[in-house]
Amino acid sequence: MSYELYYWPGIPGRGEFVRLALEDAGANYVDIAYSTAPGHGLAAVSAGLDASENPRPPFAPPFLRVDGFEVSHVANILQFLGPRLDLAPEREADRLWCHGLQLTLTDFTAEIHDTHHPIASSRYYEDQRTEARRRAADFVHQRLPRFLAYFEAVLTANQNHDWLVGAHCSTADLSLLQVVAGLAHAFPNALADLAADVPRVMALAERVAARPRLAAYLASERRMPFNQDGVFRHYPELDLDPEHKSGADQ
Amino acid sequence: MSYELYYWPGIPGRGEFVRLALEDAGANYVDIAYSTAPGHGLAAVSAGLDASENPRPPFAPPFLRVDGFEVSHVANILQFLGPRLDLAPEREADRLWCHGLQLTLTDFTAEIHDTHHPIASSRYYEDQRTEARRRAADFVHQRLPRFLAYFEAVLTANQNHDWLVGAHCSTADLSLLQVVAGLAHAFPNALADLAADVPRVMALAERVAARPRLAAYLASERRMPFNQDGVFRHYPELDLDPEHKSGADQ
Repeated sequence: MSYELYYWPGIPGRGEFVRLALEDAGANYVDIAYSTAPGHGLAAVSAGLDASENPRPPFAPPFLRVDGFEVSHVANILQFLGPRLDLAPEREADRLWCHGLQLTLTDFTAEIHDTHHPIASSRYYEDQRTEARRRAADFVHQRLPRFLAYFEAVLTANQNHDWLVGAHCSTADLSLLQVVAGLAHAFPNALADLAADVPRVMALAERVAARPRLAAYLASERRMPFNQDGVFRHYPELDLDPEHKSGADQ
Repeated sequence: MSYELYYWPGIPGRGEFVRLALEDAGANYVDIAYSTAPGHGLAAVSAGLDASENPRPPFAPPFLRVDGFEVSHVANILQFLGPRLDLAPEREADRLWCHGLQLTLTDFTAEIHDTHHPIASSRYYEDQRTEARRRAADFVHQRLPRFLAYFEAVLTANQNHDWLVGAHCSTADLSLLQVVAGLAHAFPNALADLAADVPRVMALAERVAARPRLAAYLASERRMPFNQDGVFRHYPELDLDPEHKSGADQ
């Protein structure tokens, strides 16, 4: 059985959250946009979104196909994959908690995206730079500390501090690594300034990245570097100014 | 068995998506913020968010408690309630599709919110009016038509055009009603301009609102009117200008 991942080529983006789960589990999967097999490639991603070709078109990638199922939205995909990849808690109450954490990571990621696109996703960053500076200042000073402190509190409250939920790694842990890695790329100063306040979050990211299959993936050519087209982008003017601790202008 | 809904008082907000499901099903529930019973009220909502009082604190309301479960995020709550309230499809593939639609409605709702708060949720609208006009223009001309056309395509592709998924009403249908009602309040001109292009969406909203228990709820004093503090707010300057079809300045 092979999982088919449908996502845009050229960016790690939201597809990367799904890749981390598949890679950590050593699952057999095809990244359709990059596949040269017949019927694969970018055209197959676009066709999947077209209501004239797919009666249940997702609103946007990523989406996953396997075994008669089609699942869209990162959180939905990871909830579906979790039990199949041994990356989900057993009890229903724990799975609901895990999915709630994943949805908070979805919101966190959307807010990170909107720092560079506060007006319109369809327009260039250069067309919304002024607004981006204001939004990023609020993000760096208010939202980022709040989100990180939240996950620190969740880890602190878990009797086993190694993972977000219970005593085993779940898809939410993998996704938190991806957010921390993305922040280290996009907002290195702001993250460095906060890191000492959230030691459990930082340690979790290291712990996840050291998992053998994930470490091999992260060191491989398959792991795409962050760039200026995805969710996590580095614009120095949006990051905290380490000299003045002021970040973008407020 | 009684469901406990934890949400901020004074706004319909995101809590209303949960209320619609509970009301449509005739479920027994307590709206904790409004309850005067011992241990209830606004303080109980705040306590639920406090890591020192709740080892699994949600990031934000709404959250739901019942029978040993605590569930946060609208889409997670509705996925949990769906089968219990007979508002979910039977097959796993259909449930995954339904949850994907719900998550698209989550994103749609967040974009509606951000039209009036494109810079910072913590600041007043008056502090981000200029940016709001730009963001709302993009929403009215690009995103709103795209989201509505998407749900129209989903309804068209479903062989039974009465509901989004299969032949029965689900929580996603109830939520789509709430979004359409919110748009009719917040962007009456923009919605009126598009309504003829999305007849199935408009008919679905009417069909859901006419369900007996929901109709009784909507006509009751329990149904809170939209106001200027929630997700769906009416600022005339953000809506389409019906004379010039230009909306807010681009």
